[in-house]
Amino acid sequence: MAGLFITMEGIEGSGKSTQLRKLAARLEGCGIPVDVSKEPGGTPLCRELRQLLLEPHGSGEAWCPKAELLLFYADRAQHLTQFIQPALEKGHLVLLDRFDDSTRAYQGAQGISDSMVDRIGEVVLGRLKPNLTLLLDMDPAVSLARVEARNAAASGFRETRFDSEQLEFHRRVRSRFLAIAQKEPQRVVVIPAQDAPEVVEEAIWKSLAPLLRTAGLKVE
Amino acid sequence: MAGLFITMEGIEGSGKSTQLRKLAARLEGCGIPVDVSKEPGGTPLCRELRQLLLEPHGSGEAWCPKAELLLFYADRAQHLTQFIQPALEKGHLVLLDRFDDSTRAYQGAQGISDSMVDRIGEVVLGRLKPNLTLLLDMDPAVSLARVEARNAAASGFRETRFDSEQLEFHRRVRSRFLAIAQKEPQRVVVIPAQDAPEVVEEAIWKSLAPLLRTAGLKVE
Repeated sequence: MAGLFITMEGIEGSGKSTQLRKLAARLEGCGIPVDVSKEPGGTPLCRELRQLLLEPHGSGEAWCPKAELLLFYADRAQHLTQFIQPALEKGHLVLLDRFDDSTRAYQGAQGISDSMVDRIGEVVLGRLKPNLTLLLDMDPAVSLARVEARNAAASGFRETRFDSEQLEFHRRVRSRFLAIAQKEPQRVVVIPAQDAPEVVEEAIWKSLAPLLRTAGLKVE
Repeated sequence: MAGLFITMEGIEGSGKSTQLRKLAARLEGCGIPVDVSKEPGGTPLCRELRQLLLEPHGSGEAWCPKAELLLFYADRAQHLTQFIQPALEKGHLVLLDRFDDSTRAYQGAQGISDSMVDRIGEVVLGRLKPNLTLLLDMDPAVSLARVEARNAAASGFRETRFDSEQLEFHRRVRSRFLAIAQKEPQRVVVIPAQDAPEVVEEAIWKSLAPLLRTAGLKVE
């Protein structure tokens, strides 16, 4: 089979990581090997870059929006070369926690123009698009409350920069994700993510089934 | 006065750093304050990025050419926002050890196409160009021998990645620098750098004089 490229997107606290683990386990249960990864930070070097991008800095200096955009795309270029493309060429199913739509939603919400993202994105991705993107959609007021509860529960949890940003920002990110889904309905499936995890899991599985069948994969 | 933007370029061992120090001291001796910096690594965050870019990594993973290009431009975007543009807006003279021509010469010599560099460069720089670029030009066989002697003399010297690359690569870098100078003779002055340091220093000073006069600066 040709490789399959599936990405999971959504705002913080939307349950991406949990659902990604469940989906990978379910696919493997059907005998389909899955290469799971995330952005930023999909290779050892990318993890060093992720730290430089997301952790608060002693100097108090913050990345300017353009530098940040270029760093996210450097991470992506490296991840593509080292992990994603080799896996797809071997015919594997690649499952990512965040990809290009996150850059478009988050960097866009920070004021970077779509045309600037397009110009850098085209250099890095060429024509590559995921076969399917699962957008876990929910109200940021609920998802951020989840994140706060998680942070409070996990002592020593290291907060990433985005988590501490305002509700208004996450509302803008959500609308940008939804705008992408509206523009590319063939690729992006919107999954209501406020329901119970088992309900969300079933919705994801149902959305995936046609793609797996087209790829000639047998699933229960 | 409006700010003046001067860059010094050249291959390893061409004497850039020495000549940059001499030039800064001479300008300051004439009562002209100079903001000196370098790329990559012109701000605290950029220095962390420089380390991630140039130091050998324990994992054995190397940056792919596209990721490397994006990281150099992220460094430049940050340096522009934090250091170069504020200094120029204050009317200062900014003097840099390497800038955009180095990316074009080195990344180009590693096989990145000019059009790819153009596309990223345009996003980062817009129309900004140095007022003057001093290209210290010499035979890489001589300059690399200098670098080797310097490395041997300085125990504990940490070799950067480019220093260990081949003579043939540095020949390509040199021709790319010279091609830029040929294309933009108004901006780029080629300084023969194999002469004695005092001779090189005088050649640099002579090349700079018209620009300083035009800017209304009095120099001896």
